Amino acid sequence: MAVYTAVSDQKLAAFLADYDIGRAVSFKGIAEGVENSNYFLLTDQGPHILTLYEKRVAPEDLPYFLGLMEHLARRGLACPTPIHGRDGEVLRTLCGRPAAITSFLSGVWPLRPTPAQCGPLGDALAKMHVAGLDYPARRENALSVDGWRALFAQSEARADEVVPGLRAELAAELEELATRWPHDLPEGVIHADLFPDNVFFDEDKLSGLIDFYFACNDFLAYDLAVCLNAWCFEPDVSFNVTKARLMINAYRKVRSCSEAELDALPLLARGAALRFLLTRLYDWLNQVDGAMVKPKDPMEYLKKLRFHRGLEGPGAYGIT
Amino acid sequence: MAVYTAVSDQKLAAFLADYDIGRAVSFKGIAEGVENSNYFLLTDQGPHILTLYEKRVAPEDLPYFLGLMEHLARRGLACPTPIHGRDGEVLRTLCGRPAAITSFLSGVWPLRPTPAQCGPLGDALAKMHVAGLDYPARRENALSVDGWRALFAQSEARADEVVPGLRAELAAELEELATRWPHDLPEGVIHADLFPDNVFFDEDKLSGLIDFYFACNDFLAYDLAVCLNAWCFEPDVSFNVTKARLMINAYRKVRSCSEAELDALPLLARGAALRFLLTRLYDWLNQVDGAMVKPKDPMEYLKKLRFHRGLEGPGAYGIT
Repeated sequence: MAVYTAVSDQKLAAFLADYDIGRAVSFKGIAEGVENSNYFLLTDQGPHILTLYEKRVAPEDLPYFLGLMEHLARRGLACPTPIHGRDGEVLRTLCGRPAAITSFLSGVWPLRPTPAQCGPLGDALAKMHVAGLDYPARRENALSVDGWRALFAQSEARADEVVPGLRAELAAELEELATRWPHDLPEGVIHADLFPDNVFFDEDKLSGLIDFYFACNDFLAYDLAVCLNAWCFEPDVSFNVTKARLMINAYRKVRSCSEAELDALPLLARGAALRFLLTRLYDWLNQVDGAMVKPKDPMEYLKKLRFHRGLEGPGAYGIT
Repeated sequence: MAVYTAVSDQKLAAFLADYDIGRAVSFKGIAEGVENSNYFLLTDQGPHILTLYEKRVAPEDLPYFLGLMEHLARRGLACPTPIHGRDGEVLRTLCGRPAAITSFLSGVWPLRPTPAQCGPLGDALAKMHVAGLDYPARRENALSVDGWRALFAQSEARADEVVPGLRAELAAELEELATRWPHDLPEGVIHADLFPDNVFFDEDKLSGLIDFYFACNDFLAYDLAVCLNAWCFEPDVSFNVTKARLMINAYRKVRSCSEAELDALPLLARGAALRFLLTRLYDWLNQVDGAMVKPKDPMEYLKKLRFHRGLEGPGAYGIT
């Protein structure tokens, strides 16, 4: 939860003069969001979101992200749409940081997702994948196998401080995933971070997806694997197969999955678990004094990783 | 900046069922605010603020605060109005904490107040004082002279860690203020914390006052003294007499001040500076690991205190 950059009323007014969306009626920092500074911006024309991109987002990637949101919104996906300034640009500078205004999305994200929300999630994920197929720009997944190696190298020496034996376990896991990682699954634009706080609902009706700032081109089924981890475990890290089945079935109704994709799911889910485990491990070991965000426990994702590693096949996800 | 308590969508829906304000359309934690958890709550009937009162607010004081806001709003002051539930109550419980919903106030708070905003501030402060005169409840100012002694006692031993000599300087200051503190100035309900982030503007037009959770009964002129400190110093802690003159003149147009009140202002301003210096000093010396709020520098208020101490009379505030 964070607002890293304070925007003065004067700077805001000057910034809004480049847009055709009216004057600020209210302006409040939003506590949610770890990577960027987000503001709720109400103008006399309605609600918007103003985002200042902080250092964890590479400025050169922003055209990919903003272009994607616009592309998906044009194809009918409920997601924030970047607002164009009077000069046609969507990306400009505020308080020395790249900044953009996007449309406001209604809905509330689920702190404890219910099974009834997992079907709509799978449906929306598949629709996003289909809508993204003709998005012309390309961005590699910096947090896939090669990225994991680099991340692990930064934490390896101290990994056993978190759990004894973690260093060896992760080294072996990384080795096996690198060897067995697939090469020929269907690719496209993936969200890559579709956790419950990035999905808005109006009760059980999904009202939109947000936060495309990890989006990239990768195996579409990897996105499903991220969601298996993010949506289908209970708070005690037990796996809820009903949620998984509802999610995957709804996904497959919109976009059919090949046998190879389904077979790869346990391995992809291990990879997805490792990816979040490694970033959490890094944040855990490198806590900044006075940071406004409490790092998330890396152990949760170690347990998820072990769960997927122990599976015999995708049947454990309720796939029939 | 903080949201201390996460409210699930299910708990929110159950909470809203006790009100007649519709269903949640959007719900976002607000980054501003140090004492409580504030949420922007948009329902199909419009925007509201949901506040969960955290441990720094005494639950037994909440009826005073909420009653005051309702009293002031009824008398035409622009401030949040508590929303009554179907049972008539304004204060209830959410996630184990006292909680209330209030009306939403438009406007943006000024990061760097301009002189043009100081007149409207003085005007609104005086109107609040007049509107509060017949508020029947009473709450002592826990952060007046006796409270300062208790606060100082908690930091005294370590004060010199912040600035060498601070302990002796504050002890002498406290002694002098206790001896010379007035007893017979006009009293009423004061805001007691009217910093710029608690005052909303639509450009230079003041649109409302918020955050009445330090309000209490004390000398009305003490509130002016708090505002002298909070509004009339520049970022380099130089005093801007133009801002002070505009603020005090606008105040006096609505509520006339006695000679005794004006004469007491430098002493009251020293007291007000000491009050914020002591709370900041305490927070500075007792920083919590992993806290989401960075403590404010106590030195700023030491400089302000010294400024007021060096004055010969209220003329330095532009009073003629």
